[in-house]
Amino acid sequence: MKTYGVIMAGGGGTRFWPLSRKERPKQLLNLSGKDIMVNETIDRIASSVGKENIFIVTNETQAKLMKTETAGRMAPERILAEPAARNTAACIGYAAMEIVKKYEDGIMCILPSDQFVKDTEEFTRVMDAAITAAEETDMLVTIGIEPTFPATGYGYICTESGDGVMVGESGKQYRKVKEFVEKPDEETAKDYLASGNYAWNSGMFIWKASTILKKFEELLPDIYECLTRIGEAMGTPQEADVIQKIYPEIPKISIDYGIMERSRDVIMIAGDFGWNDIGSLDMLSIMKPADENGNVVYGEQVNIDTMNCILYGTDKMIATIGIRDVIVVQEKDAILICDKNRAQDVKKIVDMLAEKGLESFL
Amino acid sequence: MKTYGVIMAGGGGTRFWPLSRKERPKQLLNLSGKDIMVNETIDRIASSVGKENIFIVTNETQAKLMKTETAGRMAPERILAEPAARNTAACIGYAAMEIVKKYEDGIMCILPSDQFVKDTEEFTRVMDAAITAAEETDMLVTIGIEPTFPATGYGYICTESGDGVMVGESGKQYRKVKEFVEKPDEETAKDYLASGNYAWNSGMFIWKASTILKKFEELLPDIYECLTRIGEAMGTPQEADVIQKIYPEIPKISIDYGIMERSRDVIMIAGDFGWNDIGSLDMLSIMKPADENGNVVYGEQVNIDTMNCILYGTDKMIATIGIRDVIVVQEKDAILICDKNRAQDVKKIVDMLAEKGLESFL
Repeated sequence: MKTYGVIMAGGGGTRFWPLSRKERPKQLLNLSGKDIMVNETIDRIASSVGKENIFIVTNETQAKLMKTETAGRMAPERILAEPAARNTAACIGYAAMEIVKKYEDGIMCILPSDQFVKDTEEFTRVMDAAITAAEETDMLVTIGIEPTFPATGYGYICTESGDGVMVGESGKQYRKVKEFVEKPDEETAKDYLASGNYAWNSGMFIWKASTILKKFEELLPDIYECLTRIGEAMGTPQEADVIQKIYPEIPKISIDYGIMERSRDVIMIAGDFGWNDIGSLDMLSIMKPADENGNVVYGEQVNIDTMNCILYGTDKMIATIGIRDVIVVQEKDAILICDKNRAQDVKKIVDMLAEKGLESFL
Repeated sequence: MKTYGVIMAGGGGTRFWPLSRKERPKQLLNLSGKDIMVNETIDRIASSVGKENIFIVTNETQAKLMKTETAGRMAPERILAEPAARNTAACIGYAAMEIVKKYEDGIMCILPSDQFVKDTEEFTRVMDAAITAAEETDMLVTIGIEPTFPATGYGYICTESGDGVMVGESGKQYRKVKEFVEKPDEETAKDYLASGNYAWNSGMFIWKASTILKKFEELLPDIYECLTRIGEAMGTPQEADVIQKIYPEIPKISIDYGIMERSRDVIMIAGDFGWNDIGSLDMLSIMKPADENGNVVYGEQVNIDTMNCILYGTDKMIATIGIRDVIVVQEKDAILICDKNRAQDVKKIVDMLAEKGLESFL
């Protein structure tokens, strides 16, 4: 069966302010110094599915810039524009319907656009195994990341041993998912790590388009109805109008809550390829090696007695004296100075700017 | 006797980087939100000496901008340009020679250009008393600031009680200076404060031009010889050439080391007019009232859990999360983030930038 990459690239990434802005969200940032995140994601999945078989689902407001930034890699018609952000279930359902209607069926490899992978060869090996699993089991496949520390910032996947192992047609063994669990506190995270049965939820899913649509029909019938109406219009002159009308009405729910956590036929392929979810600015520290004082530096800087800081300047000199565990980010018209342990609160700054009507900074 | 103001405005103010730069040193910064420091100094001394009787001694490289910035207040010919920075003795000697040669004699009120005075009326009252003292005693007069806390950042003046009090022709009593002492450690500063005999050395001096020139002749004969040669050329077509040639040869010494600490005929007028020496960036906090979290803010900012910080942005938004006792200063192409207790080290950042050849930031 043919395989397709589906890159979910509709988020705003407000935890990445001031780097991310309305008109240039996180997935369009070049954080690695090599390329923007969405292009790195395209290249990563292209090894498994072929460059010509990739879709990007993004927000209508970002679609134009997305087309410009991915030109050369992506045919513009493979960039699906959502008229409204309706969370991941809608996004995945839309792509599944597109594949079923235009190509009968296919295996979808669904990836967030804002993740970092160090070992891309190993990633490809794991992804190929997941594709095989999806094809031969007809189940929902997810990639679980071998945890390396008791992370509290990720959800976890618990797999079963013993009865939880199933065998595919190829003779390969697959671990069934027992449950998905929310981000734990530190104590629980330590228990998870010690047990050996828990992996980080990567948010990467692999399944047949027809299989996930059956899941929508069964578990999310309201969304399925919307998707059916959109599917009926696909390829007709009414397609754009129908999407504009129907899409904003799709109930907002994540694929995790809507389907994954409510399904028993889920298997997990374990991966260990230097993975990180680039969720907040403190993750900048994993994109580049730190200097001898633990500082990760992007751009020009001079410092005195500065330890374990992230210093990110785009076009200004950053000078620091006597600070530690602080994130400094300068972009265009704004500067953020943030305690490293408070990176999650950057979103609140964006909310405050919006409340004050300071649109130019958003 | 006629009185003259002499404003010493030749410094670079590297502790004020990134606000102060080579081409715009500290005295040309508007920190109060009202006017640049040198203009505020002109206005302050004008009440005692008259606007038309003020000289500014500055560096040749700053003279042009100084003339532009003080236009309307200062006749350009009253801005004396030093071809080289030779410390305060040379600067004061030059101005004294100018006054003696062009106006026979006069009382000089010498002020640094980078001080903050809250109560300008009281300042004028104290300055007028100092002028009277200089005129009727023919001694060296300095203004000592009543200390309000055990400051370690200022030098101190110790005055004598009992025998140390002298009476002027007018019947006024003056306290003679026993000694000038260097910046003390905290313990010593506490002792000074408790004793009641110590005042902060303001760096403001009042005396007759002829009196200080006699002191140069007696205590700094090398400098006096240079000054004499410059004085002989004053008013002749050779004046500029002679200054260019002689001035850079004047030995570098401060008026404090060269004359004040070696003289017994010094009296101190005590002043209490909300004085601060704006020596380093932490002093920005005294120029503006703090908000309820102790933050002093210049420019646009939003913050979360930010305490006792100085947040100074000229044209960028500054956003902070979870920081305290930090100075953030943004100006043009550079941002400084500095522990509030390390403000003295800003000079080292400037040295580092110079060493790296990053001229554009200096």
